[in-house]
Amino acid sequence: MSDFNYEVFCSESYANTTAEAGVCAAFDSINETNAGLDTFFLLFAASFVFFMQTGFAMLCAGSVRQKNVKNIMLKNILDACGGALGFWSVGYAFAYGGADSSKKGFIGNTGFFLTGFTTGGELIGWFFQFAFAATAATIVAGTVAERCKFEAYLAYSLMLTGFVYPVIVYSIWSSSGFLSAFNGEPFLGCGMHDFAGSGVVHMTGGVTALIAAKVLGPRIGRFYDADGNPLPEPVSFGPHSVSLQVLGTFVLWVGWYGFNPGSTLLISNSTAAAVSALAAVTTTIAAAAGSVSALFMDMFLSRMKTGHCEYDITMCMNGALGGLVAITAGCSVMAPWAAFVTGIIAGWVYIFFSSLLVKLRIDDAVDAIPVHFGNGMWGCLAVGLFAEPSRVANAYSDHGNYGLFYGTGGNLLGAQVVGVLWIIGWVTVIMTPYFLILNCLGLFRVDAIEEEVGLDISHHKGAAYDISGPSEEVPQKFEISRSQRKVEMPEQAPAAVAAPPQVEVLVSEDAA
Amino acid sequence: MSDFNYEVFCSESYANTTAEAGVCAAFDSINETNAGLDTFFLLFAASFVFFMQTGFAMLCAGSVRQKNVKNIMLKNILDACGGALGFWSVGYAFAYGGADSSKKGFIGNTGFFLTGFTTGGELIGWFFQFAFAATAATIVAGTVAERCKFEAYLAYSLMLTGFVYPVIVYSIWSSSGFLSAFNGEPFLGCGMHDFAGSGVVHMTGGVTALIAAKVLGPRIGRFYDADGNPLPEPVSFGPHSVSLQVLGTFVLWVGWYGFNPGSTLLISNSTAAAVSALAAVTTTIAAAAGSVSALFMDMFLSRMKTGHCEYDITMCMNGALGGLVAITAGCSVMAPWAAFVTGIIAGWVYIFFSSLLVKLRIDDAVDAIPVHFGNGMWGCLAVGLFAEPSRVANAYSDHGNYGLFYGTGGNLLGAQVVGVLWIIGWVTVIMTPYFLILNCLGLFRVDAIEEEVGLDISHHKGAAYDISGPSEEVPQKFEISRSQRKVEMPEQAPAAVAAPPQVEVLVSEDAA
Amino acid sequence: MSDFNYEVFCSESYANTTAEAGVCAAFDSINETNAGLDTFFLLFAASFVFFMQTGFAMLCAGSVRQKNVKNIMLKNILDACGGALGFWSVGYAFAYGGADSSKKGFIGNTGFFLTGFTTGGELIGWFFQFAFAATAATIVAGTVAERCKFEAYLAYSLMLTGFVYPVIVYSIWSSSGFLSAFNGEPFLGCGMHDFAGSGVVHMTGGVTALIAAKVLGPRIGRFYDADGNPLPEPVSFGPHSVSLQVLGTFVLWVGWYGFNPGSTLLISNSTAAAVSALAAVTTTIAAAAGSVSALFMDMFLSRMKTGHCEYDITMCMNGALGGLVAITAGCSVMAPWAAFVTGIIAGWVYIFFSSLLVKLRIDDAVDAIPVHFGNGMWGCLAVGLFAEPSRVANAYSDHGNYGLFYGTGGNLLGAQVVGVLWIIGWVTVIMTPYFLILNCLGLFRVDAIEEEVGLDISHHKGAAYDISGPSEEVPQKFEISRSQRKVEMPEQAPAAVAAPPQVEVLVSEDAA
Repeated sequence: MSDFNYEVFCSESYANTTAEAGVCAAFDSINETNAGLDTFFLLFAASFVFFMQTGFAMLCAGSVRQKNVKNIMLKNILDACGGALGFWSVGYAFAYGGADSSKKGFIGNTGFFLTGFTTGGELIGWFFQFAFAATAATIVAGTVAERCKFEAYLAYSLMLTGFVYPVIVYSIWSSSGFLSAFNGEPFLGCGMHDFAGSGVVHMTGGVTALIAAKVLGPRIGRFYDADGNPLPEPVSFGPHSVSLQVLGTFVLWVGWYGFNPGSTLLISNSTAAAVSALAAVTTTIAAAAGSVSALFMDMFLSRMKTGHCEYDITMCMNGALGGLVAITAGCSVMAPWAAFVTGIIAGWVYIFFSSLLVKLRIDDAVDAIPVHFGNGMWGCLAVGLFAEPSRVANAYSDHGNYGLFYGTGGNLLGAQVVGVLWIIGWVTVIMTPYFLILNCLGLFRVDAIEEEVGLDISHHKGAAYDISGPSEEVPQKFEISRSQRKVEMPEQAPAAVAAPPQVEVLVSEDAA
Repeated sequence: MSDFNYEVFCSESYANTTAEAGVCAAFDSINETNAGLDTFFLLFAASFVFFMQTGFAMLCAGSVRQKNVKNIMLKNILDACGGALGFWSVGYAFAYGGADSSKKGFIGNTGFFLTGFTTGGELIGWFFQFAFAATAATIVAGTVAERCKFEAYLAYSLMLTGFVYPVIVYSIWSSSGFLSAFNGEPFLGCGMHDFAGSGVVHMTGGVTALIAAKVLGPRIGRFYDADGNPLPEPVSFGPHSVSLQVLGTFVLWVGWYGFNPGSTLLISNSTAAAVSALAAVTTTIAAAAGSVSALFMDMFLSRMKTGHCEYDITMCMNGALGGLVAITAGCSVMAPWAAFVTGIIAGWVYIFFSSLLVKLRIDDAVDAIPVHFGNGMWGCLAVGLFAEPSRVANAYSDHGNYGLFYGTGGNLLGAQVVGVLWIIGWVTVIMTPYFLILNCLGLFRVDAIEEEVGLDISHHKGAAYDISGPSEEVPQKFEISRSQRKVEMPEQAPAAVAAPPQVEVLVSEDAA
Repeated sequence: MSDFNYEVFCSESYANTTAEAGVCAAFDSINETNAGLDTFFLLFAASFVFFMQTGFAMLCAGSVRQKNVKNIMLKNILDACGGALGFWSVGYAFAYGGADSSKKGFIGNTGFFLTGFTTGGELIGWFFQFAFAATAATIVAGTVAERCKFEAYLAYSLMLTGFVYPVIVYSIWSSSGFLSAFNGEPFLGCGMHDFAGSGVVHMTGGVTALIAAKVLGPRIGRFYDADGNPLPEPVSFGPHSVSLQVLGTFVLWVGWYGFNPGSTLLISNSTAAAVSALAAVTTTIAAAAGSVSALFMDMFLSRMKTGHCEYDITMCMNGALGGLVAITAGCSVMAPWAAFVTGIIAGWVYIFFSSLLVKLRIDDAVDAIPVHFGNGMWGCLAVGLFAEPSRVANAYSDHGNYGLFYGTGGNLLGAQVVGVLWIIGWVTVIMTPYFLILNCLGLFRVDAIEEEVGLDISHHKGAAYDISGPSEEVPQKFEISRSQRKVEMPEQAPAAVAAPPQVEVLVSEDAA
């Protein structure tokens, strides 16, 4: 690369000759191309992230009992809708408004209702960030499924996307954030490194889910009998459709290729390309490792207990999701081998947190807390261990603070720990009283009889499925009618011959 | 931007010095990049639009009764196939062949069978337009589900993609169209502004669906009893699977990010990028607003009637789709707030048309008419109200005719009204006699007994599902066999130990 | 295009003047853009190819009986995971390591564990190739469904992605391959032309599936009665969910737009754009033709037998997939009309191989062998017939060997035939003993009782679905409780009025 600086050259009117004017015009043209390319890149990535809404809806719906399918899906759709309206009106302004790397602040304050957004970069940036906000909200839906009031859900979903989540985004991703890696004077010389949001998105959703589950209490019959006494063994409410779960898991995995590689935010130079491509690779390896790790660890553990050697597809799915959540923070700064290690441990983290919740009698209808909170936390910490110097320089800047294993001290790990504590603290401080008040007012949980009959019947006009076929005598009647027509066909044939050819085919088909 | 014009400079051989030759070579290279970028952009967008076929298939299948699932899905697949073959052979030639902005015409006439298509732009342009044509055809499938003959469906599907739809495309999107915004002398000084096809695609499908539903008549038992007397209250045939409906709705929403932002047709400059990004933003906001608007409006209306406060997920889904259809025309020329208003009204338009159809006893099995016809119309008109000057200049040209609310007169609204009438008129004139003739010949509707037993049994070899498990005694037999083996295991263990390690694991697993 | 060569010009320091330095800087900048664009292109394409895993999972799961749904889906997830880990560790190194067009070799040997991969191009190249490898492995899962041991599946899945498939990739796609079109001295002057892998991916999977099905034997009750005597008519085990099958088919079709157009590997110039766009077009047309061809051919054939005119959606789906597999080799070198012919014949090829398997009593649970082996073979041969000179020059080089119908001799067809034989031979030689040994050791097939009860119960903790609703008396209880509250509401109303407004709404909603 030459030391020619076109911005200086062309802006200072050195372009005197035709050739010089041509050079400046060529750079203008390249900038136009790059503006298009980067906008397109985020359109692609955001569409994939938005597709994850489909994944969450299918995964959650598959995981609950048949009597609550419509309810959980309605919540999932409304998360997307509420996220859009909340992030359009205030959320984005709170998260990114007036960011300035020379200052630090608490919350943004410009750009409400997208006022003044005209360029492709600004507009598509909102679209990308909205898709992330909707993801954070949706994580909670699964955990509180089957017993949370619809209105309470709407209330905290808006609270989350409109205020709680934007403040966290501001602190870590905006250049004015006190933990931001993009601030002029970053915390501990590096700031928190949460590339695509293990902490910002997944922990925020996961912590909220944890508090909600604690306040809301378990589903009837899960941990306690009718008299409120603890059951000797928790009753697990099986998924109503594993097919939907697998569909959801795969769609989420696919959507993650927008989530992680897209978080480069641009792709118009070779460095960004290397960062984005690395994210695709590490995402893949961590997901695969997490899946395999959880599946086999669970198999060994349950084999020790029962003597049977059974493979649990739930472990396989949630292990993959755990690996994906865990690599989200470090996807751009870890070597493939570190992604593998992160994924393997993610599988164990998932199993550990999942068992812990059962022990604590906290009821998570879809195991979202172990996946998003547990592995969100692990993902943030893993960056502090494995971040590789050259890759950090590519993805952030060459600030000299890397993973603990690279021997440059613990500053980065320190920033990660502080970030984790900040997210837990902020969400807890805001959401705990919020949920407690909802609960005291009786607005949080449905009545026992509504829970028992299911939310679809009690709130949504009936069950989600009707797979009954025609009553038994109808097919018999049809078979008789069909065979009668077959017998009569020869008599009708001469008439059919008189008709035009294609009509004949159709007539005889009916007659057959 | 300098006033250097490389095309003039380089074509006229002014490039005498090495540096001048270098400048021209740089521009050649940029053009190569742009050709690739724009082709890639349409490949992405068209793939997303094609993905909408999946969405329509799932939404329609979920909406019908279990006995007609295979039939509706088969029609959906064949729409994609028929669209491809019809648009390859004649459709594209009719829609865009020989377009010339200095003339006006009725129908294109070059490019049959893609003859002479060699560049990336030409080929990918066909792919993108094919995906749109297939969408128009698929809209009808849902409305006439559960009673339309398979052969009739094929016949009008080909008619639509091969002739009716291409003529509308020619009139509005080809530069030779009499309503085209791209003609040298556009109608009323601006032509119709239907950016991604609220009118061209959705109204065309919706009007066809309306005519078909009227001619075909309602499903047995929906509005009339066995003697043909009107029922006091229409019987609603519930969806057989809400999960499939939600899946379809989400996939359609995702696909719309190809449909609307992709209609920029190119992305290699900052203006196109801004237009495309705006389309992504307005699409999101309108969908969210439509969903929320329909859900709560329906909740209030039914609460006034029944006293119950129930949330209907169908409203939520169709409201979102209504918002998406409505913003399709104006996604590139409206401010985000206008998209919000358009979406809110779209929810009401959906509910109004849906009730109207029931009152008129027109039976639409999936409510496609309110979504695509009702909101297609609303979307076209909304452009005439809300189109913002600077955004019109970006997406079209600075022709001076904008939305009514911007005080530049009613030319654009006038063009939109004429466009709406033209689409209704053209489709009605062609399709009404077509369907009437099919009906008179007895080729349009299946026999009553076939309808009653369902089309899957009568035409497609049986039901779509078989979710029966093994008969009851088999699991018992298995449990006995398993426990016996467990008892025997200690005796077998020594033999297993002798085997190689990995074999031991496998053997003991079987034995367990 | 001028004859200015910037690489020579800029590298040799001819850039003396400011303008000359500016030209070189502009080219550097264009190269940066192109690096980003090409990385993004493969990220897009690979994500779509990976999405095909979702398609395979849904298609396979839909095709099997309800009792084996979890098992087949688990295998599908593990294919993706195993593919990632296998291809990261050794597969990619075997497939592409140390390729050099001036030599020929058997297997690659550098790049294990992605060591030394730092650029966007290298990393995203791995991601794209991994997605292909996972596809090859997944093809087999469906064929051996419902009876193959889980551990055996894992064993051969790793074998396939880690060794068998990479060797074939090396031979045909690496520049050192003995059949490679990219070698300096290609076989027969042209090498094998298998653009996106009709042979490399689909035949490899298909041949493996065929051998596995033969060794494994048919499912109990499919071709033989309990005493091992051939049944007069084979029993067909219907799919448990056609909805899942259709979903899977559509997702696969969508994913193919990454598979085929993505195999250009780059998009930053107009030639690559034309090749990629052509692939999108031919892929579409061949799929559509295959679907229609298989559907109507089957309809005519079964009408001759039974007199009924029935449309089989399985034919429609597998015909489309057959067309997609068949066009995969030639998508970049065939004219649209040739894609149409290829697709029509693909439908027949599918039906022929499907019947042949039944005659040979080889049991393929999802008909993957006819689709992937039969049409993979046909696709390779079709290139030898239809490859068009100008398109070959674009996609490969102007080597003078084209399809037989273009009158330039049979070299290309010869190379294709040799390639087909090589793939069949290599896979057979490795996999046959492998499966035979697994079988002899009793590690390949589950016990009869496990097969009868289904693999979900015997190995995966129970059935995949539980669509039971609440027991009958619960909804009655709910209705009573609801109507009682309605009666009581007037009495409660005064209290509600005292509460804050939004609380009132919620309370009265509950009371309603």
